[in-house]
Amino acid sequence: MDSWVDGRPADALSLKDRGLAYGDGLFETIAVKAGKPLLLERHLQRLAEGCRRLGIAADHGLVRRELLAYGAALGEGVLKLILTRGDSQRGYAVSADAQPRRILQGSPPPTYPEAYQQHGIGLFPCTTRLSEQPLLAGLKHLNRLEQVLARAEWQGGEQAEGLMLDTSGRVIEGVFSNLFLVRAGVLRTADLSRCGVAGVMRAQLLEEAQALAIPVDISDISLEQFRQADEVFLCNSVYGVWPVRAFADLSWSVGPLTRKLQGIARVLLEV
Amino acid sequence: MDSWVDGRPADALSLKDRGLAYGDGLFETIAVKAGKPLLLERHLQRLAEGCRRLGIAADHGLVRRELLAYGAALGEGVLKLILTRGDSQRGYAVSADAQPRRILQGSPPPTYPEAYQQHGIGLFPCTTRLSEQPLLAGLKHLNRLEQVLARAEWQGGEQAEGLMLDTSGRVIEGVFSNLFLVRAGVLRTADLSRCGVAGVMRAQLLEEAQALAIPVDISDISLEQFRQADEVFLCNSVYGVWPVRAFADLSWSVGPLTRKLQGIARVLLEV
Repeated sequence: MDSWVDGRPADALSLKDRGLAYGDGLFETIAVKAGKPLLLERHLQRLAEGCRRLGIAADHGLVRRELLAYGAALGEGVLKLILTRGDSQRGYAVSADAQPRRILQGSPPPTYPEAYQQHGIGLFPCTTRLSEQPLLAGLKHLNRLEQVLARAEWQGGEQAEGLMLDTSGRVIEGVFSNLFLVRAGVLRTADLSRCGVAGVMRAQLLEEAQALAIPVDISDISLEQFRQADEVFLCNSVYGVWPVRAFADLSWSVGPLTRKLQGIARVLLEV
Repeated sequence: MDSWVDGRPADALSLKDRGLAYGDGLFETIAVKAGKPLLLERHLQRLAEGCRRLGIAADHGLVRRELLAYGAALGEGVLKLILTRGDSQRGYAVSADAQPRRILQGSPPPTYPEAYQQHGIGLFPCTTRLSEQPLLAGLKHLNRLEQVLARAEWQGGEQAEGLMLDTSGRVIEGVFSNLFLVRAGVLRTADLSRCGVAGVMRAQLLEEAQALAIPVDISDISLEQFRQADEVFLCNSVYGVWPVRAFADLSWSVGPLTRKLQGIARVLLEV
């Protein structure tokens, strides 16, 4: 399907766009089923939070309408929204008249092997670390060189994702997923106040777990704590939940809490 | 003057470009006088180092030829080169067939007040810190949200630049300049192995100072050491050298070593 720029079909972007010049913008990657963008309110909520923190004055009603219209036209697949601060002249300073730009791109549903869901994935130990920047932590912004470098560390299908630590050695997330572990019945995920992307599926699963009275702990996770986990899984808003079955010298079988949350995620990603 | 994309006049960019999606690329901002890109070899050297570290397989001979041709056509002004990893499909992984893309943009010579050179500038104390990422430190890459946030901290002409510390509180650089200070006859600039941009003018001035037998110290600089400096100045490859005359409660007069290096920079930015 054609991409849209500011609501109109387009395949090209102004060279003055600050998304290109500085990565000055945000994005959302949204599953679409039967013409509906899934988990839309959470995506919009994170986008709005990103705009607030970066000082981008977007028209969120317009963004929502465009997402709904594009999703309806796409039907099924993945919708990527890039929202940039718009054009600028030379230099970092923001022009008073900069108009945020919406770029919508559609792609077919991803074709991950069913085994990833069923039996779990191998997780590659990335050496690329996440730098600590509280001003950007949690946001899905366009400065993604760390993820590019991390993803380039491994090739081939043995591992479907990579584990990223921060520069202090804490366990944070996957390259394109959030990470959960289970230890003694407690569901744990990393505190994302210094780095990482606060994923939409992560937020949703945390809420579901609390509704199920599953104890939840959001705090720093050491590599040793990760290694001692009873269950490990990854999630994002496109594929749902992938159990982790192998990491370096470790292996896990798919645990009961992972299966329970995977089932919930599957329902969330249906219409 | 028209921009060029991959050697041809163009005003738009493929929406699939990884420069937009992830800030996956590098840039150089080059002064042009009498049709010549100035300090060209140093710019090309930093670009090549960036490509090596990011794994971007650019044709550096082609980049050089395009810079020379564009500079000749521009005549006088500022030439900005953006080199991205090229197009990609969805996801961080790099396609084997990705072709790096060259984007050249020209703008008129900047119109900074002559007083900046003559009497020095006010330096704004930015609260935005630079995160520490050795894999990206020194490179002029496209992930520049920290600079965007820092530059948005002040408005108006009282301050022409802002001072950025790293997240550990070390004094690093300006938002679009490198920083030098002089203390007891020694020329100091920050070690850039954790963050910062290794500027072309910084490298050139360090070499010039060494040729003049001026003692040089490249190491971590604390805020206290910065405050006790005898002279402070900023530099980049477009404006040359700006003395710093004011920062928070401090003020400096323009010192002799600053003036000497400013004169050298001025000559370098003439033809």
